[in-house]
Amino acid sequence: MAVYTEVPDEALSEFVARYDIGAVVSCKGIAEGVENSNFLLRTERDTFILTLYEKRVHEDDLPFFLGLMQHLATRDIPCPTPIHDRDNAMLGRLCGRPAAIISFLEGMWPRRPTPRHCQLLGEALARMHLAGADYEGHRGNDLSRAGWRRLIDACGAHADEVMPGLAAELEREYATIAGSWPDTLPAGVIHADLFQDNVFFLGDRLSGIIDFYFACNDFYAYDIAICLNAWCFESDGSFNVTKARVMLAGYRSVRPLSAEEIAALPLFARGSALRFLLTRLYDWLNHPPGAFVTPKDPKEYVRKMRFHAGVASASAYGIDP
Amino acid sequence: MAVYTEVPDEALSEFVARYDIGAVVSCKGIAEGVENSNFLLRTERDTFILTLYEKRVHEDDLPFFLGLMQHLATRDIPCPTPIHDRDNAMLGRLCGRPAAIISFLEGMWPRRPTPRHCQLLGEALARMHLAGADYEGHRGNDLSRAGWRRLIDACGAHADEVMPGLAAELEREYATIAGSWPDTLPAGVIHADLFQDNVFFLGDRLSGIIDFYFACNDFYAYDIAICLNAWCFESDGSFNVTKARVMLAGYRSVRPLSAEEIAALPLFARGSALRFLLTRLYDWLNHPPGAFVTPKDPKEYVRKMRFHAGVASASAYGIDP
Repeated sequence: MAVYTEVPDEALSEFVARYDIGAVVSCKGIAEGVENSNFLLRTERDTFILTLYEKRVHEDDLPFFLGLMQHLATRDIPCPTPIHDRDNAMLGRLCGRPAAIISFLEGMWPRRPTPRHCQLLGEALARMHLAGADYEGHRGNDLSRAGWRRLIDACGAHADEVMPGLAAELEREYATIAGSWPDTLPAGVIHADLFQDNVFFLGDRLSGIIDFYFACNDFYAYDIAICLNAWCFESDGSFNVTKARVMLAGYRSVRPLSAEEIAALPLFARGSALRFLLTRLYDWLNHPPGAFVTPKDPKEYVRKMRFHAGVASASAYGIDP
Repeated sequence: MAVYTEVPDEALSEFVARYDIGAVVSCKGIAEGVENSNFLLRTERDTFILTLYEKRVHEDDLPFFLGLMQHLATRDIPCPTPIHDRDNAMLGRLCGRPAAIISFLEGMWPRRPTPRHCQLLGEALARMHLAGADYEGHRGNDLSRAGWRRLIDACGAHADEVMPGLAAELEREYATIAGSWPDTLPAGVIHADLFQDNVFFLGDRLSGIIDFYFACNDFYAYDIAICLNAWCFESDGSFNVTKARVMLAGYRSVRPLSAEEIAALPLFARGSALRFLLTRLYDWLNHPPGAFVTPKDPKEYVRKMRFHAGVASASAYGIDP
C-alpha cells in the first residue's frame, strides 16, 4: 500500500498528451503495490493504470518486464498491456521517474481464496509458462541462491532479534537447499511473485495477472512452489492440501509435469519460503520508522519453510507422481 | 492517504447487490482522504466512490453529511451524490462500519493552485453557501471555540515540544480570538475543510467539491477565512494577496459580503489558523508510531496564525471594504 510520488496535474497532462488516449479526466493514487506508485488514470477514452517506478525496481529491467507483458497479452494471457506513446515507446519519464501507462484489468483479488481459485490459478500459471516460452527477453533471478546468500549476510546476527536462533537456522537451511538445488529442469520465464493480490477474478473466471516486476528466467516448477506457499496455507498456518491438489491438477491439465519436476517441488517450496522469509526479514530489520508500508511478518515464512523441510515427497501436496 | 479497512470480495459483492447499480467489476482502495477508507468502485453500470466511515467520524453525523451532499447536488453544486439502495437508504454497513456509495466526480485537485483556481473556488464557495441556505439539517461546529479549548487542554505543556513557548502562545491567542468572536453574522451550512485536495478542476472549470465530513453550521465568512489559509499561502510561507483578492472577488460576484463580514475576516482567519494548528498539533503529539498517515506539521499554522494576528484590516487580503 503506497503512493510514493505525488504527480502535479500539469506534469501529468503533459505526459498523457504524448499518448493517443485522450485528455486526463481523473487520476487517483491507488493503495496497492508496495514497490511502485500506481494511479488509476481516467482519460476521455478509457481507464488505465499509470505506474511510476520507484527506486527498488532497476530501470534497466523495465524493458524486459514491459516487453513480457506485451508478449503475454498478445497470446491471450489476461495481463496488463503497456500502451505505446506516439513515438511507439512503452516507457517514458514523469516526475523524474520511469513511468508507463498500462491497460486496466477488471476483477478483484481474492481475500479468501477457495480451492476453485487455486485450480484456476494453476491453469493460468501453466498457460503463462507456455505463452512465455518464445519470449526473447532474458533476466536472471536475482532472488535465487546468490541473492539469498547476500540477504543472509546482510541480516547477519540481527535475524535473532526476530526469532532467537534464526540466524543459525538460515545458515543451515541455505546450506541444505542451495546444496541440493538442481541444474537441469524445464525452465523459462516465470512470474516469481504470484501472490493473491496479483491475481484478479471476476465471478468464476481468472480475469487478470498483474505485477510482473519480479519476473525472470528460472525453473517453471519453482513458480509453482511459490504459489503453493502463497495460496495453500490458511491464516492459522495450516497447509490446505485440497488447495494444493487442485492447483497442481489445474496446472498439469495445461502443461504436464515431469517426474523430476514433481520430485523437486518440496525443495523448491522450501527454497521459495526461504526467499520470501529473507526479503521480509531484511525489510523488517531495515524499514525506516514511520514508513507508509508496514513490513510483512517474516515469521510466517519461517513456519512455511519448516513445513516443507518436514515433507517427505511431493505427495504431501496431494500430487500423484 | 489511507485505507484502513480491507473489504473481502464476498462482503463487497453482497453490499453492492443491495443497490441497483450492477455487479462489481473492480474495487481499488484509493490513497486519498485521511479520515475514512475510500475505494474506487467500478460496476457493470458506472464508477462510484465507496466510503467506509472510520471511527473519527461520528456515526450520528452521517445523515447530516449525506443529506447535505444530496441537497447540494440537486441544486447543481458539483458535489458527490449519495446513491440510494433498493430500500431508499443512503447509509449501510460493510465490514462492521457505516458505509455509503457516492457518485464519482471527474477532475483533479490542483497541486499548485493559480489565481484562476482561487477565483473559481471563491465563486463556487458562495454558490454552495446560497444553495445550502434551505438545507434542513443542523450540526454545530465542534471545532470552534469550545473545541479549541478542549484541544489546548488536551495538548497542554506538550505543545512546547513542537515549538518552545507554543503552549503560552496558544493560551494568549485563544483568549484574544475567543474573546472577540462575534455572535451575529450571516451564518448557515459551511464546508469547513475546503483544502486543495477537496476541490477538483477539469480544464478551466471547477468540477467537484468533496469531503463534506466537517460540514457544520457556522458563519459564512469563517468558511472564506479557512480558504484564505488553505489556498493563499505559498509553500515558502508568504501570503499571496493576488490569490486572496481574486478569491474574495469571485465570492462577492455571487454572494455580497456585508461590511461586518469583511471586518471579521482577519479574526476569522486567525481563528481558523488556530483551529487547524490545534488539530494538527494534537495529531502530531498523539499519532501512533508506525501509523500509515504522516501527521501534518503544525508549525505551518503557527506561522499563518501569526500572519493574521499582524493584519490591521481585511484590506491586507486585497479586499476593498
